[in-house]
Amino acid sequence: MLSQHYKDMLGQKSVIREMNAAAFAMGEKIGHDQIFNFSLGNPSVPAPDSVNETMLRLLKNEDSLALHGYSESHGNLKVRGQVAEYLKKTYGLPYTADHVFMASGAAGAIAHALRAVACPGEEVITFAPFFPEYRPYVNETGAILKVVPADTERFQINFEAFEEMLSEKTAAILINSPNNPSGIVYSTETIQRLADTLRKAQETFGHDIYLISDEPYREIVFEGVDAPCISAFYDNTLMCYSFSKSISLPGERIGYVAANPACKDAETIIHMCTQISRGIGHNCPASLIQLAVGEVLGDTADLSVYETNSNILYNELTAMGFSIVKPGGTFYMFPKAPISDAKEFCQKALEYRLVIVPSDSFGVEGFFRVAYCVPTETVERSLDSFRELAKFYGM
Amino acid sequence: MLSQHYKDMLGQKSVIREMNAAAFAMGEKIGHDQIFNFSLGNPSVPAPDSVNETMLRLLKNEDSLALHGYSESHGNLKVRGQVAEYLKKTYGLPYTADHVFMASGAAGAIAHALRAVACPGEEVITFAPFFPEYRPYVNETGAILKVVPADTERFQINFEAFEEMLSEKTAAILINSPNNPSGIVYSTETIQRLADTLRKAQETFGHDIYLISDEPYREIVFEGVDAPCISAFYDNTLMCYSFSKSISLPGERIGYVAANPACKDAETIIHMCTQISRGIGHNCPASLIQLAVGEVLGDTADLSVYETNSNILYNELTAMGFSIVKPGGTFYMFPKAPISDAKEFCQKALEYRLVIVPSDSFGVEGFFRVAYCVPTETVERSLDSFRELAKFYGM
Repeated sequence: MLSQHYKDMLGQKSVIREMNAAAFAMGEKIGHDQIFNFSLGNPSVPAPDSVNETMLRLLKNEDSLALHGYSESHGNLKVRGQVAEYLKKTYGLPYTADHVFMASGAAGAIAHALRAVACPGEEVITFAPFFPEYRPYVNETGAILKVVPADTERFQINFEAFEEMLSEKTAAILINSPNNPSGIVYSTETIQRLADTLRKAQETFGHDIYLISDEPYREIVFEGVDAPCISAFYDNTLMCYSFSKSISLPGERIGYVAANPACKDAETIIHMCTQISRGIGHNCPASLIQLAVGEVLGDTADLSVYETNSNILYNELTAMGFSIVKPGGTFYMFPKAPISDAKEFCQKALEYRLVIVPSDSFGVEGFFRVAYCVPTETVERSLDSFRELAKFYGM
Repeated sequence: MLSQHYKDMLGQKSVIREMNAAAFAMGEKIGHDQIFNFSLGNPSVPAPDSVNETMLRLLKNEDSLALHGYSESHGNLKVRGQVAEYLKKTYGLPYTADHVFMASGAAGAIAHALRAVACPGEEVITFAPFFPEYRPYVNETGAILKVVPADTERFQINFEAFEEMLSEKTAAILINSPNNPSGIVYSTETIQRLADTLRKAQETFGHDIYLISDEPYREIVFEGVDAPCISAFYDNTLMCYSFSKSISLPGERIGYVAANPACKDAETIIHMCTQISRGIGHNCPASLIQLAVGEVLGDTADLSVYETNSNILYNELTAMGFSIVKPGGTFYMFPKAPISDAKEFCQKALEYRLVIVPSDSFGVEGFFRVAYCVPTETVERSLDSFRELAKFYGM
């Protein structure tokens, strides 16, 4: 018989995908260029030339069996070494290949990290607003996702609520900075306090608590914003990285787990990741992509458009009366809706050809996400629609 | 705390990998060309030129955002259509894109298919000899793997034992023909009887029973051997395919699940696969590889070396006195060991620089697997070693 569990999941459609589908349907009617689609977090700038150049070179010069052959079960050893060297150079922590597991994007990295450190019945804590896919990642391990209510003033961490939520059942904390959907970067003060709180909790409850740090937007940080290396603050940190956003390769499904060398079980966790892969039948990202990213570490796509768009939208929308915590990075912002029902607001926005996502599935009510990974020209053309929408609500 | 479950798996090393490691260690001492390494099922022939040519063309001509962008959650729609069209043309069954889910090799395909149709506590039946990774694939769904003892005379199906094992708990049957490790292809008679038995069991137990057909060696079938399309015999068949062996791309992790259009829940199962992917954080194979295989369907590497090697080994080893069921395909054969302890035999073989794998982890005692995906010259040079080994055992 079919698994009722997965059948039930079929009903749980992603709101983001639904809004995108609405945008598509409307675009088919009135022309896609008439729609201001801010629903999807899909990079809008091409990969840096170095990516395709590297792949072309590998395809032309490398032996077919080596290029397309099986990777080691942790990922290609050479690439793991390259990643470790890059992290060491960039963040000053003594990573080696033994601390790195190649994964299919941050999604794969997080799902592996969670399975390694969270057992059925244990708890994983995350902070609203959060990426909705965290829910299936955690649910499928058998652990329970607990959500700390948002600090809606600054989108840093609501420490009071967090400390109340910590318990002996706490296995891991899952954070995302720079943050989807708020665009906020956790300050040094926030991360320091988070690390201190976790160290204290480890002592109180007598077991390790892991910090799973989801960092696909690490390179998309705006001018003047301090974005400290999270792993440097807390030994039991598992960094989950994706090349999807920084070099615009979301479809190539490539990223990694890097366990902090200071974590006493770092190497064991990396070995455990290979066993987790075995059971789900996913043995490594594609070899060509692994080899390619190993050669272009540190390169980025031209990410400047995101900051340009962010500044335009922030300035214009705040001038219209929207209340927004200014993004420090990513390609998202998370303004407050003028009414408490964000879903109703986003439905209304559709009438103005604006496709934005209500905040509810991100764990907060009354906000909306604008994914401004679109051409700047689209942002500029959308402003009249935002103005009319604001006017409708008497702003 | 670390997951004890995955920590425990760390101890369960693959015998195949261990033999390969032994080969490597010995090679470091006496020279790798002195070792006859028949341990790994790694293709020995390059991918067909069309693969790299297609990838080069895509990299040069396609828009970066389209080429490297997110796939739909079932896999690239165009590629799914191409696969369906190919299957329809080749096997005469009315596949459409709705019946195809792109997966990371047969491993990913099987793991998804199992999660879709087998629930915790239910049973999945496979037939010895079988690929040892079936065990983690099934275990991790929470279902129980039941193994039908081998028909050691012909390596077809031991139907008597199989029929006894069928019960109301049976959710799925997992088969692999052409077979790793025996090299045997199930005859039309075997598949017909299997299908009849399953239809009867469905009726008896009042629920669907799925046939998960693992087919990575589908194109490696030797002259004169009949290799019928398994899906054509049984409606509830989920074909799990990989491009790893046919076009020598094992590291690129690309394959698919194709649900038989005659299966009443085919489309639901394909949708369920996307939800399964969500929970394990593995959203689609890499986009470039998906697009590339869609363009080269039906192409194969030059697979003739496998038949050449098979014939040499079969003729020579049987002449030495080994008892072998003649392979019909793949690049494996599965001779009987001259002593009952296959592990001891394979350890002894190492002294003759022969790296072969004992049959125990494949679910049969007293046999050994020879993976002859090596240059023919290696096969020829190995014969003296086999002769000496046979002589040691007084054959």
